[in-house]
Amino acid sequence: MVITKEHISDVVKSYDLENITIATICSHSSLQIFDGARKEGFKTLGICLREPPKYYDAFPLGKPDEFLVLNKYSELLDHIEELKAKNTIIIPHGSFVAYMGPEIFVEMDLPTFGNRLVLEWESIRKKERQWLVGAGIHMPDVIEDPHNIDGPVMIKYDGAHGGKGFFIAKTYEDFMEHIDTTKTYTIQRFIVGTRYYLHYFYSPIKDTGYTLSKGSLEMLSMDRRVESNADEIFRLGSPKELLEAGIIPTYVVTGNAPLVARESLLPLIFELGARVVEESIKLFGGMIGSFCLETVFTDDLEIKVFEISARIVAGTNLYVSGSPYSDLVEENLSTGRRIAREIKNAVKLNKLDEITS
Amino acid sequence: MVITKEHISDVVKSYDLENITIATICSHSSLQIFDGARKEGFKTLGICLREPPKYYDAFPLGKPDEFLVLNKYSELLDHIEELKAKNTIIIPHGSFVAYMGPEIFVEMDLPTFGNRLVLEWESIRKKERQWLVGAGIHMPDVIEDPHNIDGPVMIKYDGAHGGKGFFIAKTYEDFMEHIDTTKTYTIQRFIVGTRYYLHYFYSPIKDTGYTLSKGSLEMLSMDRRVESNADEIFRLGSPKELLEAGIIPTYVVTGNAPLVARESLLPLIFELGARVVEESIKLFGGMIGSFCLETVFTDDLEIKVFEISARIVAGTNLYVSGSPYSDLVEENLSTGRRIAREIKNAVKLNKLDEITS
Amino acid sequence: MVITKEHISDVVKSYDLENITIATICSHSSLQIFDGARKEGFKTLGICLREPPKYYDAFPLGKPDEFLVLNKYSELLDHIEELKAKNTIIIPHGSFVAYMGPEIFVEMDLPTFGNRLVLEWESIRKKERQWLVGAGIHMPDVIEDPHNIDGPVMIKYDGAHGGKGFFIAKTYEDFMEHIDTTKTYTIQRFIVGTRYYLHYFYSPIKDTGYTLSKGSLEMLSMDRRVESNADEIFRLGSPKELLEAGIIPTYVVTGNAPLVARESLLPLIFELGARVVEESIKLFGGMIGSFCLETVFTDDLEIKVFEISARIVAGTNLYVSGSPYSDLVEENLSTGRRIAREIKNAVKLNKLDEITS
Repeated sequence: MVITKEHISDVVKSYDLENITIATICSHSSLQIFDGARKEGFKTLGICLREPPKYYDAFPLGKPDEFLVLNKYSELLDHIEELKAKNTIIIPHGSFVAYMGPEIFVEMDLPTFGNRLVLEWESIRKKERQWLVGAGIHMPDVIEDPHNIDGPVMIKYDGAHGGKGFFIAKTYEDFMEHIDTTKTYTIQRFIVGTRYYLHYFYSPIKDTGYTLSKGSLEMLSMDRRVESNADEIFRLGSPKELLEAGIIPTYVVTGNAPLVARESLLPLIFELGARVVEESIKLFGGMIGSFCLETVFTDDLEIKVFEISARIVAGTNLYVSGSPYSDLVEENLSTGRRIAREIKNAVKLNKLDEITS
Repeated sequence: MVITKEHISDVVKSYDLENITIATICSHSSLQIFDGARKEGFKTLGICLREPPKYYDAFPLGKPDEFLVLNKYSELLDHIEELKAKNTIIIPHGSFVAYMGPEIFVEMDLPTFGNRLVLEWESIRKKERQWLVGAGIHMPDVIEDPHNIDGPVMIKYDGAHGGKGFFIAKTYEDFMEHIDTTKTYTIQRFIVGTRYYLHYFYSPIKDTGYTLSKGSLEMLSMDRRVESNADEIFRLGSPKELLEAGIIPTYVVTGNAPLVARESLLPLIFELGARVVEESIKLFGGMIGSFCLETVFTDDLEIKVFEISARIVAGTNLYVSGSPYSDLVEENLSTGRRIAREIKNAVKLNKLDEITS
Repeated sequence: MVITKEHISDVVKSYDLENITIATICSHSSLQIFDGARKEGFKTLGICLREPPKYYDAFPLGKPDEFLVLNKYSELLDHIEELKAKNTIIIPHGSFVAYMGPEIFVEMDLPTFGNRLVLEWESIRKKERQWLVGAGIHMPDVIEDPHNIDGPVMIKYDGAHGGKGFFIAKTYEDFMEHIDTTKTYTIQRFIVGTRYYLHYFYSPIKDTGYTLSKGSLEMLSMDRRVESNADEIFRLGSPKELLEAGIIPTYVVTGNAPLVARESLLPLIFELGARVVEESIKLFGGMIGSFCLETVFTDDLEIKVFEISARIVAGTNLYVSGSPYSDLVEENLSTGRRIAREIKNAVKLNKLDEITS
C-alpha cells in the first residue's frame, strides 16, 4: 500500500497537537534533530536496532526521551498504532531512507515531515536531472557513451552512499580500467572548482522573508564534505603517480568542515534554491523543509550543481548552536531546531497537513 | 575635490550623535556590519544598485533599516546632503572601493570610518611594500626581472580582485607562457607553508588592553581563503600534469574557512600587527579599525606577510556571533559589531573625529 | 625525588578548598584554561618566563589573575611553598612537559590535574604502542627494519614536537636519502584517509553519562591539524616532482581547523576512547581528564589511531565557547572549562585526590 498525502492528512487531524512526538532513526543528524525538537518543546523518540546506542548517554541534550528498539527497520511497520498514539511525526534525515529501505518508507502509515513524493525525484539520477535542468540549473554535462570521454569525468554509481566507489577518469581507457560493469552508473564531466554544500530550508507556510510563489526560502548554513581518501591522498602522490602505484583515490564521506561563501554570491545562491523549489512545486507539489544543493563554485564564480539532497544533510551537524548564516535569522538556530519550529508553526496555523505526507 | 580630514571633522561636529546611521554598500560583509550596528543601537542604511537585494529578506538580523537605491555607485555623490541629514557614517568594507571606484571614494563628502589616506598605501604594491618592509615585516622577495626567476614565484596583477589571473611559475619559460603583458604585475617568491589571514582591529581611542604608542590592538579572528580552483585541483593532477593538459590553476576567492593558530605564535602575531600600525602612524597618521595581514606560516614557524588589507575582510563573515579569539575579548563580538562599538565609544568620548576621515 | 600520588593526596588535603588557584604555563591552550577556570569561579595564575606575555592584555577573559615570572622553568621548584599557599592545582597542557622538562615535571611537589604516571606511557613510543594495541586499537603497522619498507611509510622521530622532521618514504632508498641517523625514530605504515583529532574527556568521579567500569567518558570536540608545509605544498607539485626539485614536505603544526565526523561513526569513536581508558586503568591506574586520539578515518570507515596525547590538545582552542559536540552536553563548554568543572565537582564530592597526582 502506498500512503497518500490525503491519508496522512487524516492521520494528522486525529492527533493530539499538544502532545506531538518527534521521531527519527538514531544516526546521521539525530542528535541535532532531538536537541532541536526538545528546545521547541516536543517529546522525542529514537528508532534504533537491538539496543539504544550508548553514545547518546554522553550527549544529554541530544538524547531522545525514549527509544523504539527494533530487530530490523522493517519492524517499524508493526508499531504504527503505538506511534500514532504518541502523535508521532517522523523526520526522515539523509540516511533514513537508506536504512529503512524505500519500500518500507513509502508504506509507512505515519506522518513524515516533508513530501514523500520527492524520493523518486532525488534518488533516480535521470529524474533528478530532469528536475534540476528544468529549473534552469547548471549541472555538469552527462556523457552517455564512455567512448566520448574527452577530459576529466567523475563516474558515480547509482544509489551509492557516501561516495563509495566513485572515481575520476580522463580517458576511455581510464574508464574501462576501473568501471564496475555490474552496477548502473552516470558519467559526469568533472568540474574544477571548490565544493560547497548549501543547506536551505523551504517553508510552504511562512509568508515573510525571502518569499516564493508560495512560502519562503532560507539558507541556514553550508559545509564542505571531508572525503576519504581524496582529501589527503595528494600527500602521497599525484593521481597519475598513485595510479601507477595501484592506489585509487576514493570519495567516501567521513565528516564535514565549515565554511562561508562570498556575500556577493548570495543572490545567485538564493536564485538557485528558489528555482529548485519552484520547479518542485510544478513537478510534484513541492519539496518541503531542509534540502541541500551539492555544488562546485568555479573560478568564474559560477555555481554548478552536481546533486540535490531533499532532506536534512549531515553537514548541518556542524551548526548545532547556529551558523554564520542562521545567526542572522535568529540566535541558536540549528537545522534540527528549524524543522521542529516549522512543525510548531504549522500546529499554530493549523497547517500541519501542509508540511507532512 | 579631495576631502580633507579637517573637513570631515567639521561634518561630524554638525551631526546629531544620538541619531547616527551606519551605511555601507550591500555586499562583502554588509550583513555582519548591519547586524553589528543594530546590536550597538544604530540605524542602518544599505547602498545598492537598481533594487534592494532580495537575500536580505532571508536574514532579518542583517537587513538594513532602509536602502539607498542607485543606478550606478557614482550617483552616491548626489545624495550627500540627504545622508548627512541622517548623520551617516560610511563603513568602507573590502569591496567598497572596488565597487565605488577610488576617485568617487576620495571625493565622497561624508564621514567614513577609518583613515582614507590608507587607500593609496594599500592599493599600490610598491607603497604597500614600503609600508610593510619599513615596519620590519618579512615579505616574500620581489623579483624585478623575470629572467631572474630561479624557483617558484607567484605572479599577481595589480588591482586584481579575488586573485583573478594570479599564477605560479617556476622558470622564465613558465612565466612567459602565461603572462598577460597588457597588465602591470608583481613577481613574488612563492612561500611554502600554510596560509593564515589574520583579522586585527586597531583603536586609536582605546587606552586599555594591548596598548601601542597610541591606542590599542586586538586580534579578533583568522581564516583561510577558499580559492577556486587551486584548493581542489590536485584531485585531477599535479600542477605539472595539469599544465601538460592545458589546465591552469587559478586563485579566485570563493569563500572562507575558519582556523586558529598555535597559541605560542600569538606573541609574534601581535608584534606583526603592532609594527604595521606603528609604521602607519608615522607614514600617514595611522590606519584605523579593522585590518588583515595575509600571511604564510612556514615550517620554521616564521610568518611571512604577502599582503595587507586595511579594512574589514570577508573572512570575518565566519564569525557573526564571535570567534575563538573574540570570545576571549567579549561574548558575541563580530568584527562588524566591533566597528559599531568603536563608533559608539568615540561618541561617548567625543572623539568621533579621531576615527573618521 | 619522585612525587607519589599519596604525597599529593596529603597536599590536597591541606588545601583551602574555597580558594583554589588554577595554574598553567602561558602558552598552548592557556587562554582557554584561564577562561574556563574563571567561569567556574577559580583564581588563575600564569607561569611565564621573563615577563608576562603582552598578548593576554588583548584577551581580558583569558588573562590570568596573576603571573609567576621565572627566568627558566626549573625555577618553578623554588616557588612550591608559595604556590601551595595559594592552593594551586597545575593543569599540564600539551606543551607543559615539553617546556618544563620531564624531570622537573616528575619532581614538582604540587598537585597536577591528571595522573602523572601517564607521562611515560605516552612519551615512549613502545609503551604507547603496548597501551593502545593492548586496548585492541588498530594502529598503523610499525616496520622495524627499513629494508622491509614496501609501500608508503611515515618516519617519526622520538620526542619531536609539532611534527618537525617527519617525512614520508616509499622505498628503502627514499628512507636512506632523508633519515637523520643521529636520532631515534619509528617507521609507521602511512595510512591513506582523512585525519581526525578526537578530543575526549574522562572523569573517574562522574557516574552518569557514558559510563565505564569506573567513571564516565565524554567526547567534547574534534579538529584537523594544519600542517606546514604539507597542507598546501601540492600547489607547487606532487611529492615526486617536489623531491626532484629538492623540496621536502614537512609536517609542522601551525594551527587547527574544525570539523565533525559522521554520526554513524560515534559508536566506534566512543568505543575507541573507552578501550583506551579501560586499558590505562589496568596499566597505571587510569588516565584522567582530557585526552586526544590522533586518527585517520579510512575509506572503509575504519579508524586507525596513530598516536595518543594524554592531556588537553591545542585543537580544543577552536572551541572556546563550545563545539558541535560539547553543545550537546551543555552550552558554552570548552575543554578548559570542563577541566575546571571537574575540579569543582571533585571539591564538592571531596574527591580532589582522585583526579590529581
